[in-house]
Amino acid sequence: MTSADIKLKRLVAATFTPFTAEGEINLSVIGPYIDYLKEKQGVDSIFVNGTTGESMSLSVAERKTLAEEWCQKAKGKMDQVIVHVGCLSLKDSQELAHHAKQIGADGIAVIAPSFFKPTTSDALKKFLGEVSSAAPNVPFYYYHMPATTGVNVLARDVLEGIEELIPSFSGLKFSGSDLMDFGLCVSYIQSHCSALYGIDEQLLAALPFGAHGAVGSTYNYLGYHVNKLLTAFEKGDLFEARKIQFKIQELLSYAKKLGFDVGVNKQLMNEVSGLCLGLPRLPVMPCPQDHSLRLVKKFHSLFTES
Amino acid sequence: MTSADIKLKRLVAATFTPFTAEGEINLSVIGPYIDYLKEKQGVDSIFVNGTTGESMSLSVAERKTLAEEWCQKAKGKMDQVIVHVGCLSLKDSQELAHHAKQIGADGIAVIAPSFFKPTTSDALKKFLGEVSSAAPNVPFYYYHMPATTGVNVLARDVLEGIEELIPSFSGLKFSGSDLMDFGLCVSYIQSHCSALYGIDEQLLAALPFGAHGAVGSTYNYLGYHVNKLLTAFEKGDLFEARKIQFKIQELLSYAKKLGFDVGVNKQLMNEVSGLCLGLPRLPVMPCPQDHSLRLVKKFHSLFTES
Amino acid sequence: MTSADIKLKRLVAATFTPFTAEGEINLSVIGPYIDYLKEKQGVDSIFVNGTTGESMSLSVAERKTLAEEWCQKAKGKMDQVIVHVGCLSLKDSQELAHHAKQIGADGIAVIAPSFFKPTTSDALKKFLGEVSSAAPNVPFYYYHMPATTGVNVLARDVLEGIEELIPSFSGLKFSGSDLMDFGLCVSYIQSHCSALYGIDEQLLAALPFGAHGAVGSTYNYLGYHVNKLLTAFEKGDLFEARKIQFKIQELLSYAKKLGFDVGVNKQLMNEVSGLCLGLPRLPVMPCPQDHSLRLVKKFHSLFTES
Amino acid sequence: MTSADIKLKRLVAATFTPFTAEGEINLSVIGPYIDYLKEKQGVDSIFVNGTTGESMSLSVAERKTLAEEWCQKAKGKMDQVIVHVGCLSLKDSQELAHHAKQIGADGIAVIAPSFFKPTTSDALKKFLGEVSSAAPNVPFYYYHMPATTGVNVLARDVLEGIEELIPSFSGLKFSGSDLMDFGLCVSYIQSHCSALYGIDEQLLAALPFGAHGAVGSTYNYLGYHVNKLLTAFEKGDLFEARKIQFKIQELLSYAKKLGFDVGVNKQLMNEVSGLCLGLPRLPVMPCPQDHSLRLVKKFHSLFTES
Repeated sequence: MTSADIKLKRLVAATFTPFTAEGEINLSVIGPYIDYLKEKQGVDSIFVNGTTGESMSLSVAERKTLAEEWCQKAKGKMDQVIVHVGCLSLKDSQELAHHAKQIGADGIAVIAPSFFKPTTSDALKKFLGEVSSAAPNVPFYYYHMPATTGVNVLARDVLEGIEELIPSFSGLKFSGSDLMDFGLCVSYIQSHCSALYGIDEQLLAALPFGAHGAVGSTYNYLGYHVNKLLTAFEKGDLFEARKIQFKIQELLSYAKKLGFDVGVNKQLMNEVSGLCLGLPRLPVMPCPQDHSLRLVKKFHSLFTES
Repeated sequence: MTSADIKLKRLVAATFTPFTAEGEINLSVIGPYIDYLKEKQGVDSIFVNGTTGESMSLSVAERKTLAEEWCQKAKGKMDQVIVHVGCLSLKDSQELAHHAKQIGADGIAVIAPSFFKPTTSDALKKFLGEVSSAAPNVPFYYYHMPATTGVNVLARDVLEGIEELIPSFSGLKFSGSDLMDFGLCVSYIQSHCSALYGIDEQLLAALPFGAHGAVGSTYNYLGYHVNKLLTAFEKGDLFEARKIQFKIQELLSYAKKLGFDVGVNKQLMNEVSGLCLGLPRLPVMPCPQDHSLRLVKKFHSLFTES
Repeated sequence: MTSADIKLKRLVAATFTPFTAEGEINLSVIGPYIDYLKEKQGVDSIFVNGTTGESMSLSVAERKTLAEEWCQKAKGKMDQVIVHVGCLSLKDSQELAHHAKQIGADGIAVIAPSFFKPTTSDALKKFLGEVSSAAPNVPFYYYHMPATTGVNVLARDVLEGIEELIPSFSGLKFSGSDLMDFGLCVSYIQSHCSALYGIDEQLLAALPFGAHGAVGSTYNYLGYHVNKLLTAFEKGDLFEARKIQFKIQELLSYAKKLGFDVGVNKQLMNEVSGLCLGLPRLPVMPCPQDHSLRLVKKFHSLFTES
Repeated sequence: MTSADIKLKRLVAATFTPFTAEGEINLSVIGPYIDYLKEKQGVDSIFVNGTTGESMSLSVAERKTLAEEWCQKAKGKMDQVIVHVGCLSLKDSQELAHHAKQIGADGIAVIAPSFFKPTTSDALKKFLGEVSSAAPNVPFYYYHMPATTGVNVLARDVLEGIEELIPSFSGLKFSGSDLMDFGLCVSYIQSHCSALYGIDEQLLAALPFGAHGAVGSTYNYLGYHVNKLLTAFEKGDLFEARKIQFKIQELLSYAKKLGFDVGVNKQLMNEVSGLCLGLPRLPVMPCPQDHSLRLVKKFHSLFTES
């Protein structure tokens, strides 16, 4: 799988949205956040205002302000800044797509609308196409996450002929566990398009299918280790790749038994990075203190170097 | 069940949002729409910007404009105008709640946020409470629709102690098929609160539990008949009530086999009422012509009088 | 709804299977069990070897022995003994159906096979028809329980033309919460067929649709009260019917919060009736002692008379 | 991952059960079937009376007769014959386990009971342990297939301390898409135990985690190609491994769009192998002719060599 023309590859951190103590968006953390990702985690691309970024809990105005700040601060530091512009409302998505173009985002991504759930790939593609038409030349990524959206349309069916509808189509973030569907996407996709995997705890499952990289929340604090995993896999050192993946599985399995959501995840990032990203916004609940302590302890028992 | 103090009762039409041919909201239809509901369907209360109204596909600005028009045109004609202000984003919901108060809505309703799904009744109540705090004196209704939202929290648990958090709590719209949960809500709820049922095709199941009324989309075009059903039930004429419910079930069962969503439902309303509500907005797809013809034919074969 | 010809109506207890301390079937309890149902609970019909009877955990030989004992001991005491003969294996079901005929059962019932799940009503009907063909003149009841079987076929579609395939078709036990589907069954079914409802905690929801009775596990210990509920409903005394249903909902809601399955249910029956039905068989776990104590206490706080 | 002591590894064909035209089990095909697997597909181990073998549609007597024939005919030809003895009824499972021991099976496997679904790993382990106790020295394999059984217990939790309960525990067949759970099993399991993957269309996803082999239905007719896939993977030739996996995905994706179940699968095997395995037994429906023709054509267009 030659990836000469592929823009989005390797690790992409799905960023958290920093909030102040009053629950307002906190732009001041974005600069240091980008430095942290680059310097400490070896991450060169970001996916902003996505699920990890609590975009669905933000107003359109907040999403614009954040996107602008991410793009500005990432200049010269990040390779790619992908702005997620998916909303339940097509109108809002179009407004955000247009804005992303104006601020010079390297790409936009759109998740399937999850309240009125498209039941066919055609309906979903029509929605995606309308969003893209508000920013026709901006590289477009489809964000596939069926378990969360409840939209049970195969990604491979979404990709069928999508270039005709969306000439700027550039790839997909596949956050699903159906690896047949993922494999079919990889084998169908054009050579300039990216197939990125989005379930961090089983990234190793997607690599043999030819995934070009990964987008995920844990790369905010595990990027350093997952970069090693990717390198080991590329070198054919499965033993090493597996060792790292097993540690991540042990961490996330432990986290899930405690209860793991964006709030807990954000708190883990606060603790590991030392950044002040604040609490999540309702309906996501803040992480209980005790819960956080145990998880951080587990983290350090597994990952000491970084 | 004495219902002296209950404000919201009997039939409440969940209104469709009228769009122009260009897909913009169409305020000019709202006046005639209200007259139609009152005069032809005998409906005295409306639930606007809800699921039927495609609120999740509207921008915040559009929702405000619509809410205002509904309230204004309903003056002197409708008994109650409930404005649904639920959004994925708490900030947006609060803005809409505050606006609803300013325009004199008779009540606000909030659905559970469905992207980041609350997993406990406490988390959900916290969210609802924060919305209500933006319009503290406006009667508040909880809109329970677990199959669509994927939020699997019992309504009865949401109601537990809710008056302390939301002093203006005034009832719930229960759009679920767990009639034990509904029964427990009815028996728990304070005497000034309404328990309204929201699955039109099985309204008769909820009546013996003491439902005070019903909120639904089909009351837009079946209000006349369902008013008869309610009256028959109140008089103890189960035979008549059942006859009407069976006809509705035959219609909706037929519709579901064809494929039934807000787009098809809206087209049926266009055909039956003669109003020009336009097409739905993406991601809801327009109803195929042939599909619409067959459904309208079925409607008229079942309901000729009205 | 004239029910002159209907054989199966009013309350039908879905019986538990008595086990000895060693976990073998215990025939000696069956006689006293029948007397208890008749004398203390006012129940005149039984549904044996069903879900409550843990039939799926029994061998074919055990099911035969049990069925024979139930039929024999019920003679002259019970109006109807329905033997459930559903199995995953058609061969086993046919053997049990043939046996039920030989022992003079008043009817047989069959649940949808739940491992290889029929995906169409035709496939399911074909299976049911083959079972019935092993006992062609024995009244046949379809046992609909989609949430447990995972077979998502509408009961109404199963009923379509079923008399041609199964001339002895006599009705259905509907254990589902889709009251539209139930209503459509009631309005379609021939006048000699029974439509019995099977979710005890919301029986009141099914009565206005014309349910002829109910089959359930709680009628083993709540038959006395539910008979009153039925009578109240028939007299049009909704207030009284609702009062009883609300109590049952309070009991079962409490039970579900603790964890409610056949093992807990059986233990409640042991405590309330004084019969020695023993423990459940694996994979059903025995009810923890503390759990049982709390549930029995709740039971007595709600139902003192009987 | 040293696999010196591991008994069950590489490809294991989950065999179909041959039926006569009258629908009775057909022992005469078993000998030629084994030769076909060995000679044409390079398969050395079999998993009999499993899901593919329609075991849940067989009587206990039929399962015994079949198991005996498979063991006898496999002597000197197959490396391992694993007899699946899982049933809804513990008693039946124990009888089959005891019988498997008597006929000299190389191992037994047990699926979670799926009617009364264990809700904790403890309950499930207790059930598995009771089955194993009827054949205490026979290597025991846990068969994990949550999507079909509806038993949502993590395999890793089932494995926790299982050797104490089942000293003969020898591995698991993991037919699930949660590769974190699979990875955790592989890293936890003792060195003499096998971790076999069971979703054929995404086998490549499990290999980097250290799967020791695969159990599946498609290895009946694709064993030759999947052996090549395994060898390519072992050599580090991901390009070749992926090419084969993509072809299998194309075949199975095509099959699923047509409708793919044990009946269709069996017909494909009939056509590809030339063996006469007959039709499936109800509730599995026979494969429509046209459907079969299209699938076989697709098969040959993808796989011509073998």
